[in-house]
Amino acid sequence: MWFIRINMTDQTYKVEEAPAEYKYLAGRGLTSTLVAKEVPPLAHPLGPNNKVVFSPGFVTGTSAPTSARVSVGGKSPLTGGIKEANAGSPWAPMLADMRVKALIVEGQPKEKDKFWGVYVTWDADAGKPKVEFFDATPYTGQNLYDVYPKVYEKFGEKVAIAGCGVAGEYGYANAGVVFDDMAKRPSRYAGRGGLGSVLGSKRLKFIVLNAKGAPGVEIADKALFEEGRKKMIDALRTHDITKPKGGLNTYGTAVLINILNEAGGLPTRNFSSGRFEGAPKIAGEAIFEGNKARLGKELFNHACSPGCIIQCSNTWHNEDGTEKTSCIEYESDWALGANCGIDDLDAVGEMVQLCNAYGLDTIETGVTIGVAMEAGVIPFGDAKGAINLIHEMGKGTPIGRILGSGTGAAGKVLGVTRVPAVKGQGMPAYEPRAVKGIGITYATSTMGADHTAGYTIAPEILGVMGKQDPLSPEGKAALSRAFQATTAFIDSSGHCLFIAFAILDIASGYQGMIDEVNGVLGTNWTADDILKFGSEVLKTERAFNEAAGIPKEADRVPEFMKLEPLPPHNQTFDVPDAALDSVYGEL
Amino acid sequence: MWFIRINMTDQTYKVEEAPAEYKYLAGRGLTSTLVAKEVPPLAHPLGPNNKVVFSPGFVTGTSAPTSARVSVGGKSPLTGGIKEANAGSPWAPMLADMRVKALIVEGQPKEKDKFWGVYVTWDADAGKPKVEFFDATPYTGQNLYDVYPKVYEKFGEKVAIAGCGVAGEYGYANAGVVFDDMAKRPSRYAGRGGLGSVLGSKRLKFIVLNAKGAPGVEIADKALFEEGRKKMIDALRTHDITKPKGGLNTYGTAVLINILNEAGGLPTRNFSSGRFEGAPKIAGEAIFEGNKARLGKELFNHACSPGCIIQCSNTWHNEDGTEKTSCIEYESDWALGANCGIDDLDAVGEMVQLCNAYGLDTIETGVTIGVAMEAGVIPFGDAKGAINLIHEMGKGTPIGRILGSGTGAAGKVLGVTRVPAVKGQGMPAYEPRAVKGIGITYATSTMGADHTAGYTIAPEILGVMGKQDPLSPEGKAALSRAFQATTAFIDSSGHCLFIAFAILDIASGYQGMIDEVNGVLGTNWTADDILKFGSEVLKTERAFNEAAGIPKEADRVPEFMKLEPLPPHNQTFDVPDAALDSVYGEL
Repeated sequence: MWFIRINMTDQTYKVEEAPAEYKYLAGRGLTSTLVAKEVPPLAHPLGPNNKVVFSPGFVTGTSAPTSARVSVGGKSPLTGGIKEANAGSPWAPMLADMRVKALIVEGQPKEKDKFWGVYVTWDADAGKPKVEFFDATPYTGQNLYDVYPKVYEKFGEKVAIAGCGVAGEYGYANAGVVFDDMAKRPSRYAGRGGLGSVLGSKRLKFIVLNAKGAPGVEIADKALFEEGRKKMIDALRTHDITKPKGGLNTYGTAVLINILNEAGGLPTRNFSSGRFEGAPKIAGEAIFEGNKARLGKELFNHACSPGCIIQCSNTWHNEDGTEKTSCIEYESDWALGANCGIDDLDAVGEMVQLCNAYGLDTIETGVTIGVAMEAGVIPFGDAKGAINLIHEMGKGTPIGRILGSGTGAAGKVLGVTRVPAVKGQGMPAYEPRAVKGIGITYATSTMGADHTAGYTIAPEILGVMGKQDPLSPEGKAALSRAFQATTAFIDSSGHCLFIAFAILDIASGYQGMIDEVNGVLGTNWTADDILKFGSEVLKTERAFNEAAGIPKEADRVPEFMKLEPLPPHNQTFDVPDAALDSVYGEL
Repeated sequence: MWFIRINMTDQTYKVEEAPAEYKYLAGRGLTSTLVAKEVPPLAHPLGPNNKVVFSPGFVTGTSAPTSARVSVGGKSPLTGGIKEANAGSPWAPMLADMRVKALIVEGQPKEKDKFWGVYVTWDADAGKPKVEFFDATPYTGQNLYDVYPKVYEKFGEKVAIAGCGVAGEYGYANAGVVFDDMAKRPSRYAGRGGLGSVLGSKRLKFIVLNAKGAPGVEIADKALFEEGRKKMIDALRTHDITKPKGGLNTYGTAVLINILNEAGGLPTRNFSSGRFEGAPKIAGEAIFEGNKARLGKELFNHACSPGCIIQCSNTWHNEDGTEKTSCIEYESDWALGANCGIDDLDAVGEMVQLCNAYGLDTIETGVTIGVAMEAGVIPFGDAKGAINLIHEMGKGTPIGRILGSGTGAAGKVLGVTRVPAVKGQGMPAYEPRAVKGIGITYATSTMGADHTAGYTIAPEILGVMGKQDPLSPEGKAALSRAFQATTAFIDSSGHCLFIAFAILDIASGYQGMIDEVNGVLGTNWTADDILKFGSEVLKTERAFNEAAGIPKEADRVPEFMKLEPLPPHNQTFDVPDAALDSVYGEL
């Protein structure tokens, strides 16, 4: 297994044997450990001492289903703390196939005018990966949908591309790291926390992979791995949410719009209500029916990355049947829709496409535009105005830069008090006042407000593992802690978090995940070991944040959620601070 | 003694006997104690739970020289921590004359379109102050130099006015609280930390005082007070810096420009050098000589507030002999001059006038414009461009709002890594890499980067109390701690900090300050008690900050000062973290 270190100060690289101490780490576990070890906690996120670490999960690159994920880590320009964001993409198994445990981008050129790309291939003679630098300046300043084909033209159709859009070039705290999907769209993002601009600050525009001739992932115990894989497949194919033509495959993640709206937990017009009258018009069902009307046939969803059997990525089509965008995720749909008071799927689709084109995180973009609407920059519901604001972000104008700096900073600049952010990061699509457990995750996660860090929506809304009352704060700190620890392991396994719906309900599926990982590593980890692994990752992240000046007092939802009751349940966020502190205090 | 509580939620007020527990607190000691006690540490600075507290010092309103100061406290929109800023103004002794120990502005109206003013007078019948509310909406959205005369017209020439400019109306983190000077200019600011926008968030535009008939400050031991006052006057009239036609009276605070430039500690072009080739053109000497040339006579400086015998406020004149602005302080001169690479006194004077007109802190404005220059918004040295940017701030345009949000936030929005700020607040006019003690004060002060919090420049540059090597970090943590504690007392006494030059060199002057305070209060505090008082104030402030999520890890200078050696001494900031932590750790 290899570590590739790419030094952007002088555009050199090293391919080293991965140190033995990291043998049992991968994905988020490895990116967070390396960031904690190698990045000074008080480094400026856009300065020379920050790093960007890419690491595929334990089973990424294998035939394990829904496991083509790669973690991206660094110090976040958005939160000022540690960050891991992950994405599913053909890029991920290619890195794994070359047996690259971590690709670490370091340093920063003094000259700021030029951008670089790196081309990573398998050197069959040397039996290890090699790296070539190329001038990526010609690819800068443009829409990624225009640029990606040029890069494929240069390197051929077999490559996969990661990098940053203009948002990353500008240094926006809201710039994601882009990856290709199965159809070579620049549309799969390790979106949150601004790691795209850490790449940009290092003047690294693209990382192009070509795994031709690479040996593929080594599996220590193939029989065990196969056993686990089958259990996992069975679980995913059985569960109502993840099975073929099930909830996700039919309606995409936007199936949640109506569900959360019904629960009164769909944040609407900058978190001023939990219910949006326009929800049905932007729901997953509306996407399915709209496509059916425009295409004249039912369209089920597709995989974003190789080997996924959940296949939840949708495509939204124009009236003439051409593609408008892929994909409208629940979070994007909500952020750019309900949260902005916009109920027009074509407008939402256009905004998703623009975010992908410019390299922006859709969640942060929508939440920040909601704050701008609150400030009166444009009115709620103004779809044209919102589209225009995203163009301003793409152009790097002053208002574009304000919005590109993310929810917390934009709220400060615009003088707004209703700013739905924790640690500067905008809140995703679940209202803490209506779903208390997810509020605890938002408040306490090492990542800032992040639903994927501990998705208690599964039990609180979807009834996975048995239904829990979303309005009650009781027992939710422990619930969030368990979800956060388990998630830290799933994020290290290489699996998409969406396996959780199935494996938390179907015990054999959970065991399947453990078997797969043990099969690859030759370990004999138990379910307890998994939780311990996750807890250790969280502790590492937490220690980094504390050293970076983010104390437990930052583990709070914004004040307005304690002052303003949220319709329709008219509840405030009533989780005691002591409960919040117990999440990591009792880790 | 009275507490006036002004509730902006419903425009009501209460005049209460000041609680006995606050008897031995005033000025900063009282504002910080009240803020710590009454403002939830995690309150949004612009939300209904923040407060603005005004308190005159112990001897404010008496005949003690140079003591017409008022402290303003609250939770800072700039730093997110506790804030005290103070100013000298006729307003201060008027509040003291009415025996108002604290004027506390609370709450927030739901309706945001209307602004209010309050008129505080002495009710001779009731034997206490009374408050009337008036509609201040007609005074909003305008240059304060246009508005102030209208307010004087309404209330008569005997009143004094405090409030906020458009910067405060907009909610800028860089909005100061304005006070009148002796010539009724809106030019004396409790500038730092954005408390002007806390007033703005409460829709309180002006606080107009009329002390007619008020009883004046009660003095418990007149003989002791007189003794102290004489010692203080002797010290101030004797010391080279503070005596008539001495350094401050002749050249103003801008006398420091050449001195700091010579020491290599004058931050230049956004803290990229410690020496500015244009320094002599903007120095205090150039102001004196320029006025002489334009007026045909020597002009010595005047007092900003009643009873000041240092009289350091200058006036800068146009070529035709008319007034351009008053006053060009050293900090403003440096921030808008050297720090922006601008060596044109007329341009600096115009910018000072604009900052006063719009309600902006000159230091924060200049430091933020320096960051914008670093980002390439305009080039260094572009005086016209800088003037235009201040107009943009006055207009509330997107670039104006970015700059109005202060150094830390603007640095984030503009994607700059060389951001000279601590806790979000821009650094004043002394380079931490060239003057280590002041760097320790910047890093550790509860106020964010603030030279007035512990002015070690006195010994390190000016040789007050004996010269200390500015480049050496040795012993500077203890020095900063002692200065910070002493300053917390001086800021509570009602004296201007500039008495420190004299009283730290002349022991009888120091005793004079203590005697004055003991005379007013009837106490018998010693020099040790003074230090203990200051330490307690610091501890109170520190505890608030910690509860507000500002930990000791925030007590650091920005990373670039540890990475980039500063010309001409080519030193980095080499004070160990442990020394920084010892400042409050050993308090």
